[in-house]
Formats: sequence, C-alpha cells, structure tokens
Amino acid sequence: MSAIKTIRISPQEMKSTFIKKLMVFDFSAEDAEKCATIFTENSLDGVYSHGVNRFPRFVDYLKRGLVLPKNKPQLKKQMGVIEQWDGAMGAGPLNAFFATNRALELAEENGMGCIALSNTNHWMRGGYYGWQAAKKGYLYIGWTNTTAIMPAWGAQDSKLGNNPLVMGIPYRKEAIVLDMSMSQFSYGAMELASLKNQKLPVTGGYDSDGNLTDDPDAILQSLRTLPVGFWKGSGLSFVLDVMAAILSDGLAVHQVAQKEEEISCSQIFITINPKKLAGYDQKDTAIDEIVKDLKSSMPMDEMSKMRYPGERAVESRKENTEKGIPVLAAVWDDILHL
Amino acid sequence: MSAIKTIRISPQEMKSTFIKKLMVFDFSAEDAEKCATIFTENSLDGVYSHGVNRFPRFVDYLKRGLVLPKNKPQLKKQMGVIEQWDGAMGAGPLNAFFATNRALELAEENGMGCIALSNTNHWMRGGYYGWQAAKKGYLYIGWTNTTAIMPAWGAQDSKLGNNPLVMGIPYRKEAIVLDMSMSQFSYGAMELASLKNQKLPVTGGYDSDGNLTDDPDAILQSLRTLPVGFWKGSGLSFVLDVMAAILSDGLAVHQVAQKEEEISCSQIFITINPKKLAGYDQKDTAIDEIVKDLKSSMPMDEMSKMRYPGERAVESRKENTEKGIPVLAAVWDDILHL
Repeated sequence: MSAIKTIRISPQEMKSTFIKKLMVFDFSAEDAEKCATIFTENSLDGVYSHGVNRFPRFVDYLKRGLVLPKNKPQLKKQMGVIEQWDGAMGAGPLNAFFATNRALELAEENGMGCIALSNTNHWMRGGYYGWQAAKKGYLYIGWTNTTAIMPAWGAQDSKLGNNPLVMGIPYRKEAIVLDMSMSQFSYGAMELASLKNQKLPVTGGYDSDGNLTDDPDAILQSLRTLPVGFWKGSGLSFVLDVMAAILSDGLAVHQVAQKEEEISCSQIFITINPKKLAGYDQKDTAIDEIVKDLKSSMPMDEMSKMRYPGERAVESRKENTEKGIPVLAAVWDDILHL
Repeated sequence: MSAIKTIRISPQEMKSTFIKKLMVFDFSAEDAEKCATIFTENSLDGVYSHGVNRFPRFVDYLKRGLVLPKNKPQLKKQMGVIEQWDGAMGAGPLNAFFATNRALELAEENGMGCIALSNTNHWMRGGYYGWQAAKKGYLYIGWTNTTAIMPAWGAQDSKLGNNPLVMGIPYRKEAIVLDMSMSQFSYGAMELASLKNQKLPVTGGYDSDGNLTDDPDAILQSLRTLPVGFWKGSGLSFVLDVMAAILSDGLAVHQVAQKEEEISCSQIFITINPKKLAGYDQKDTAIDEIVKDLKSSMPMDEMSKMRYPGERAVESRKENTEKGIPVLAAVWDDILHL
C-alpha cells in the first residue's frame, strides 16, 4: 500500500519547496513566498485538500496559462465602502489575500468594507481569509462561486456551484472560522471514502436509479451529489452565486462552467470592524459562555466531541507544527518532480 | 374535520382585523397599521406560520407584557456604517422594519449599512426584511438568533437556535429572497406532517433510540431535530449566533433559552447599495441567464419544478390577492375572539 504511505514534512521544508516550484513561473519573490505560505498554512491547519494536495493542480494551471502569475487586481469601481476589483486572472490565493486586506483597510476607517472581485481563480481554502481577517481583529463574511458541480434540488444534472461560505470571528488568540461549501460532500471526500471502502457517514446523493444513498461509488457514478439541507442549500448556493456575480460584475456559475477548467470566478469579501462597538471589550468572555454551553451538550455517543468551527484547525496546526505536515508520499514525490 | 376547514379572508379584512386587535394595546395607530401590514403580507406571500397563524401568539405576548408596544429602538453606538441599537423589547416586526430602513439609509450614502439590534423580539418572517430592502433596490443579508431548539451535531439535547438567515436581491419588479432557518424542519412543519399522517420528505431528526428517521412523531417525541447538512448547519447556526450576540452586544441563544419565552433576541441587518456599481444596469439580464440555466435543469421527476428562492412567494401573493388568504377556520375564529 505504498500509494497511501504518509510522510511528515516540516512546514519550513514544505514552504521552501513550494517557493522553489513557483519561482519557475513569473511570480515576484514576494508573491511566490505569499502563495507558498498560504498553501503551507492550509496544510498546517489540516486542510490538505486545499493545501499540499492541491499544489500540483495549481502548478498545472500555471503551466497551461490558466492562472497568470504576474497579473494584479485592478480597481474597477468604488462606491462608499464597496469596491469592485478585476482579478485579472491572477493567482486566486494572492487575489483573495489582497482583497481581504483591502476590505480590512476599508473597515478600519468605516466600520465595514466589501470587495467584490471578478475574474479571479480558485482561492484554495476559503477559511484562510476568514482567519486572516479574524486574527487581525475583524469579523469576516466571504464567499466564492465555483463551477457547476451539484444538481439543484429536484434536478438530475449539475447546475449549481458548491460556493463555499466563510465566516470568521476573532476569539481569544485564535478565531472561530466556518468554511462551508454547499455540497454535503466534496468529490474529494467521496473519492477518499471509496478508496477506503467506506460508506459516507450520512446520505450524500442519489444513485443512478434516483435513490438516496450513502454509497460514495454510486454517487461518483451518478454525479448526483446533494446540497446541504436538500432544498435549503440548493437555494443558498443559488443566491450566493447571484450576489457574487452581480456585485462583482463577474461570471456566474453557469458561465464558469463553460470554461475549460474552474477559472474566472466571482468572490465577495465583507469585513466588519467591531473594535469600537459597545460591549466588544467583553466579547471573549461572552463567547466563552457560548462555547461552554455548546460543550455542555449531552453527546450522542462516546465518540462525539462538540467542537466549534475552527477549533479543529487549531488542533491540527499545533500537531503539524510539532510533528510535520502529513503528506501522502506519492503526492510529495509528485511535487518534487513538478 | 372542521378543525382543518379553510376559509379565504381578503387581505383588507385581515389587515383591518389585525389593526383592531392591536389597537387594544399601546400601539400608535401608525405602528398598529405597520404591524398588521407585516402579518398580512407574510400571509399573502404564503408564509402563514409567521403570518396569520402566528398572530394569536403575538397578541398573547403583548398581553403577558413580553412584547412592549410603546417601546422604540434606541441607538447605543455608531461606528462608521455600523450602528448598534437596543430594541427595548418592542414589537419584533416593528423593530426589524425600522432596522432595515435604517440600514438602507446608511447604505444609500456609504454603499453599505449594518444594524446590530439587541433586546428585540421575534421578527416573524425574516424574509419580509429581505423583500423590504430588495424592493427598494438594495441587497440584503440578515439573520436573527432564536431560543435553543436543535441539538448541535453529535449532541442529544438542544443547544442551538434555528437562527434564520435571509438574503435578498432585487430582480426585475420583484426579488430573489432566501429565508432559511438552520433546522431541516420546523416543529410546525413536523406537527403538520404528523396531523396529516405523513412522513417527512427527507430525514428530519433522530428517534429516541438514536436512529435517523423521517417519522415526524418520533422526532416530536425525541426533540432531536437535525440541522441542515448535519455538521454544516450546526456550525453555521453557531457562528450566526456568535456574530449576532457580539455585534449587537445582546443575548446569545443560550441566554434567550433561559427566558420564559423566546424573547430578547439579537439580530443583524446588512444592506448593500449596488446602484452605482459597474455592470449593475445590466444585472436583470445577467440574473435572467442564471435563472434560465437553473430552469433548464433535467428534472428528477414530473413533479419537480425548479424555482429560485422567493419565486413561490410571488406566486402565492398573486393567488392570495385574487382569491383571499387561506386561513384555517378555527384559527380565524380564534383571532376574532382574541
């Protein structure tokens, strides 16, 4: 089973490897370092699917000219605390990092900021930008649209994006960060379950006969994944797409789906500056009580552990900082040979 | 089966009846009219659970002094485009209507506005405020916390609110409005299914033995309802509560749950003024294409109809304006005798 042999790579080694591989392209040293940092920190936080495991595909898109490393976002229009930017098909993580920082600048002065970014590329892990804002003391609400990957409720063919929604809140020295895509399971999660010969923990889609199923292979066959909450996540995905596309004056899911790959997405970054609000000096104590209440829940079984969104990222970061980041040996080998 | 006999009441008669019943309390004529309008329009749009069917409980709360009809929201703090208001335990619909309008004023000048409202009461149908903003040409994102009504993922006892999230977008002469609570089914929906001896259309919770079930009676017995998307809606509910409580400096779900009824909630109203943004003059055409793509889905079966969020409200409004608002005869009789 060498294909699933896992090795541990130190964050330093991972980051320097990423930088080396990115500098082959037209990135500035600063941009290569920032991009490598984002991929490494996503991996440190345990989101390997949008960290180290995704790096080869990112490089592939660079090679194919789908992501343009020299391009920088351009301001299209400003209206009060809202700015529309054109991502110019630059690197998604760099564009999103920039947009988050710009939204923070707007919020610092005005209480809120909103960047609507068109023509950008996959931001990898959306939660990164929630953490970015929250660790600086701001609240964050952001989302992206994606390519069509999921049938609307009542449909057989995929017209909706999984359009991840991210919300971040500063909490003590860390943050509460929700990073929630609108599909119940990603294709990656279903492929992993299939590889391990496991059922999904809950119903994840329809089989080819139209029956709800927890069999990942049946769903990988039918491509009929389920939105979270059936009709509810279907509606939320739709609305997130419409808002992202019209606020950014960018492409909607059905247009991204016409592209050869998932490129030229539309994204929203909303920041809130809570620092001067009434009661905010006591917010950590207030959140402590909310967390305490959650954790006082009667667990469903011995395996159940009540966690708030983002808590697991902190645990992973601690473990992976100490022990190194777990990577499939085959994936790391691929990266070394990119 | 006289208990489920339905009659049709004209919107004019419904509204004037509500006004008469409200004027018994200390409402101004203007406030009684506004409150009656909201209850009537919610019913017109087909959301009877938070329109006519809920009116008796609203009156009960007035009688018991849980909702204070004379009280008006008070500004607590302003920071740029954010304002914190104290709802002063006034009528939830009036407070929410006010907060939405105030957020629109802020957005008109500054691109965005955010009202964080503490110490308010049930806003009835959250979608109302999404429509309110969207029909004036603004985008809207808002939510409320509630009392504890749903177990967190992995828990047996209810610690989470269903914390409805509302998003509104102007579209042609109407709007796209999502109004989504974080529980898969409301208790009202389960009670209705039980009354009709029907199963739920999908899994809605756990029975008392800890098995997932679509049997409404089993869930009404166990009180173990499911969050939308299992762990995902559980996390979203949690984060919405934390944001609402800390931004408004108001109560969190666990504190509302200590009250004798669901009162003193915390709510967020975010508005976005898109009117001067690049491309916005073409947005209806862009949305037409998104809607067209959705509706071109291959349906799951002959019964499936692809609708966007809010589409059904327009259909109901049209039908109920023409034919009158359908009301259970017993409910209307109750209201006449309040």
